Amino acid sequence: MTLLLDSWYCAGWSDELTDTPQRIKIANQDLVLFRDTSGAAIALSNRCPHRFASLAEGKVVGDTIECPYHGLRFDRTGACVLNPHGRGVIPPNAKVDTTILVEKHGALWVWLGNPELADPSTIVNVSFVNDPRYVAVKGVIHVKGNYQLLNDNLLDLTHAAYIHPTTVGLSRDDSVGPDQMDYDFKTEGNIVHSNYGFYDVPPTAQFKRFFKKERGDLYVHVTWVPASSILLDLSMSELGVPKGEIDEPHDRVCMIPAAHLIVPETDETSHYFYAMCRHVDIEDAEGCAETRALGLKTFSQEDAPMVERVQELMATDDLFALRPAILETDIAGVQARRILARLVAQQSESKAA
Amino acid sequence: MTLLLDSWYCAGWSDELTDTPQRIKIANQDLVLFRDTSGAAIALSNRCPHRFASLAEGKVVGDTIECPYHGLRFDRTGACVLNPHGRGVIPPNAKVDTTILVEKHGALWVWLGNPELADPSTIVNVSFVNDPRYVAVKGVIHVKGNYQLLNDNLLDLTHAAYIHPTTVGLSRDDSVGPDQMDYDFKTEGNIVHSNYGFYDVPPTAQFKRFFKKERGDLYVHVTWVPASSILLDLSMSELGVPKGEIDEPHDRVCMIPAAHLIVPETDETSHYFYAMCRHVDIEDAEGCAETRALGLKTFSQEDAPMVERVQELMATDDLFALRPAILETDIAGVQARRILARLVAQQSESKAA
Amino acid sequence: MTLLLDSWYCAGWSDELTDTPQRIKIANQDLVLFRDTSGAAIALSNRCPHRFASLAEGKVVGDTIECPYHGLRFDRTGACVLNPHGRGVIPPNAKVDTTILVEKHGALWVWLGNPELADPSTIVNVSFVNDPRYVAVKGVIHVKGNYQLLNDNLLDLTHAAYIHPTTVGLSRDDSVGPDQMDYDFKTEGNIVHSNYGFYDVPPTAQFKRFFKKERGDLYVHVTWVPASSILLDLSMSELGVPKGEIDEPHDRVCMIPAAHLIVPETDETSHYFYAMCRHVDIEDAEGCAETRALGLKTFSQEDAPMVERVQELMATDDLFALRPAILETDIAGVQARRILARLVAQQSESKAA
Repeated sequence: MTLLLDSWYCAGWSDELTDTPQRIKIANQDLVLFRDTSGAAIALSNRCPHRFASLAEGKVVGDTIECPYHGLRFDRTGACVLNPHGRGVIPPNAKVDTTILVEKHGALWVWLGNPELADPSTIVNVSFVNDPRYVAVKGVIHVKGNYQLLNDNLLDLTHAAYIHPTTVGLSRDDSVGPDQMDYDFKTEGNIVHSNYGFYDVPPTAQFKRFFKKERGDLYVHVTWVPASSILLDLSMSELGVPKGEIDEPHDRVCMIPAAHLIVPETDETSHYFYAMCRHVDIEDAEGCAETRALGLKTFSQEDAPMVERVQELMATDDLFALRPAILETDIAGVQARRILARLVAQQSESKAA
Repeated sequence: MTLLLDSWYCAGWSDELTDTPQRIKIANQDLVLFRDTSGAAIALSNRCPHRFASLAEGKVVGDTIECPYHGLRFDRTGACVLNPHGRGVIPPNAKVDTTILVEKHGALWVWLGNPELADPSTIVNVSFVNDPRYVAVKGVIHVKGNYQLLNDNLLDLTHAAYIHPTTVGLSRDDSVGPDQMDYDFKTEGNIVHSNYGFYDVPPTAQFKRFFKKERGDLYVHVTWVPASSILLDLSMSELGVPKGEIDEPHDRVCMIPAAHLIVPETDETSHYFYAMCRHVDIEDAEGCAETRALGLKTFSQEDAPMVERVQELMATDDLFALRPAILETDIAGVQARRILARLVAQQSESKAA
Repeated sequence: MTLLLDSWYCAGWSDELTDTPQRIKIANQDLVLFRDTSGAAIALSNRCPHRFASLAEGKVVGDTIECPYHGLRFDRTGACVLNPHGRGVIPPNAKVDTTILVEKHGALWVWLGNPELADPSTIVNVSFVNDPRYVAVKGVIHVKGNYQLLNDNLLDLTHAAYIHPTTVGLSRDDSVGPDQMDYDFKTEGNIVHSNYGFYDVPPTAQFKRFFKKERGDLYVHVTWVPASSILLDLSMSELGVPKGEIDEPHDRVCMIPAAHLIVPETDETSHYFYAMCRHVDIEDAEGCAETRALGLKTFSQEDAPMVERVQELMATDDLFALRPAILETDIAGVQARRILARLVAQQSESKAA
């Protein structure tokens, strides 16, 4: 399978981009990102059209980026605006490709596909990431695995009791009976929802510091937007109190929603951007440090090694070719893979047409 | 050339396998090994049929192995016997492949080829490995080289004076004259024997501590069983005393036979299991430590680097395609390669038929 | 593109070759170099024809090299002259290929192509390397980039202000106006000259210690001989004093010529031999240490990382296939690439004929 280019991908967090160029590879394309003097975020192909140096190793000069090798400068349209050598002649093909970039919800989003289809309203709604009522712990890790393995991971949370019992999952020792949980799945257009409820359970390690009760109701609502942007709406309500809504923080509900923005780097590697947010105790810096440590443990030491071994053992990115045993709990993940396969096929057809 | 699947391969030492799963790749197949509650050793494909996690990272629960990712459990027949999620439905293709495994001579032997041909009586006879009259120093190293290069190495011991003069070989300074040595080679069916005698020579470093004489007669009898199991029947006799027989330990003969069990991991890498045994001073723990250090030096620092450079310089596993200069002393190694080529061809034909 | 075999390549510095064998790979060919008892330098294929061990791991015995694996010995013609085993029979194909090697200008030069074309008079003239009026700082680094990227680098020195401002280049702060510099380019047969003059400028870091004036005229005359041998004739003259000539050291001219001998190891990696020489203060050992440190910084920390990122971003060795923007200052580099492409094509044709 080829990667989906007609998709928004997170290329970084807004507050971390300055006039120091950043390099990132997305869907096999090398990009350089930087801000110009107006503060506008710009994304260009990272490869200088002269001798193919990495522009990200250069520096921003005014509203241009200067190539580190011979000093050519390029503006936000990708045009070379300075050749500092000889008579300064600029050949017509001295241009770098530009990439569509928008800022939304505190993140930088790039679109590598058909520009006519680039509609920012289709970006996953993770508005809590830069909502002042929430505090966010953000980061990114690199995973040696195809991005769909991370979709699978996030769309089937039954793995949490097995690999995250001391971090973000309930432990098997908590013996949650079948009558204490429910599961609901639906697909709306190309968006997949996978909602879990666990009733009268102790807080997971992730909630313990902030929820402050012995038991409660745990809600995990997952929203997947293709190709691989995922909202995890996590909350714990006091017993009998309904699930909270992210847009309306509530005293008796502890909400810690998260954005999990998976970005294919190559067919076999991914960037995993995460923002773990919360509306309670937002001044609690120690709580943020705890969340950061827990997130790193969860993603880097629990999920990533699992996904990397799976990548190695599959040795293909075509899951269905391996005829997997499909469980009831795979329904969301399978649906997402089918949607993706269709979108990639459409993309190829439209290119062919 | 493809690898020979119709062959017994060592997958580990019996006394090192417990209910903690072990992972090993043999002939490009990823296996997990563990013992069930009865102590029986079991080998399964290491890849969970659900989402292809590595079962060896999971744990043994009773007589089953539990997948580390979502908790599916598989019994010794490879059948999934527990899906802990939802209604617990187990799809019919939730099965892992099983692998034939027998225990013999203190080792675990797997058979990856045609099950009808799996005859444990064809396993190389290295009974001394768990014979209580012998003490064994065992281990395994990993070599970045095709397994046949290790066959070659062990079937032509003339290299010992060049790369092992201070460990397991006679030094060239010992000036063994042509009248002090003989060499005998024979092939019986698919088994190759290569026997060396060195008369009135000083003990090698390997024998020095245990033989305790200034000079003696050194016998090295090599038995190769395809694809790559090798018995090294080493002994030193006091001058004039006949060569000892492994089955009949003898006071005036110092016997330190060894099993060299070469296992192709991939076409370009190998596992090298070794057991260096002896019937004298079997309580001498310091002697065992000395043997262990000497073995590691011999295999890891002398043989492996040589074989790895040869692999790199050959850049193929087809020795004959490179038209090597063949010496008289290559006869056993060449014969083994021809037998292997024939067995592999037969294997392909039987698959085609 | 294939590599040019009909070319002289530096395989090392003369004064560093002894009777300890050295291994080097040039144009994908593994070679072993050593001196025999007469002091003659010999180059052979590094691969023993018996079991393909690396001869360079062996040792020189008299006028032969002894294979480290089984002790076969080969003379300077590549013939096996000793099989120490059995009856000592030497099979007719026990021969290693020889390689043409000459010593000139303090370097060892090998020729891997058509022997009839091997004319040592075509070796680049870097006689200052072993001219007693000069002192030399020599070394070699390994670069993960196609050798032509290093040709490009050395044939367009406009990069110096960008990546070498504190080592071998003028800083941009020195604001050299267009009237203070000139540039001259010419091709003579297959040799490319690219000459720069900078007038009334401060010494670069490279010249500072030795030139000892506040300002002067800087000359950089580059001579490229295919495939990739480059003479950098660098000098600074006192204001108004003509450029110095390497063959005639001059009191008021500071000459620090350099040999940059680029050697393709594989299509994607290179050896970079350098000799930075000078005719002034030749007893100044501290000055040599300073030059050595500056050279290492320039080549290892400035040029090599740049070239390695370019290699990665190009992902091909065919620059023109990527349709680069070509500047006026690329003329020498482009000319060299065209000459090389023609020589490689001729080489292929002559093989085909």
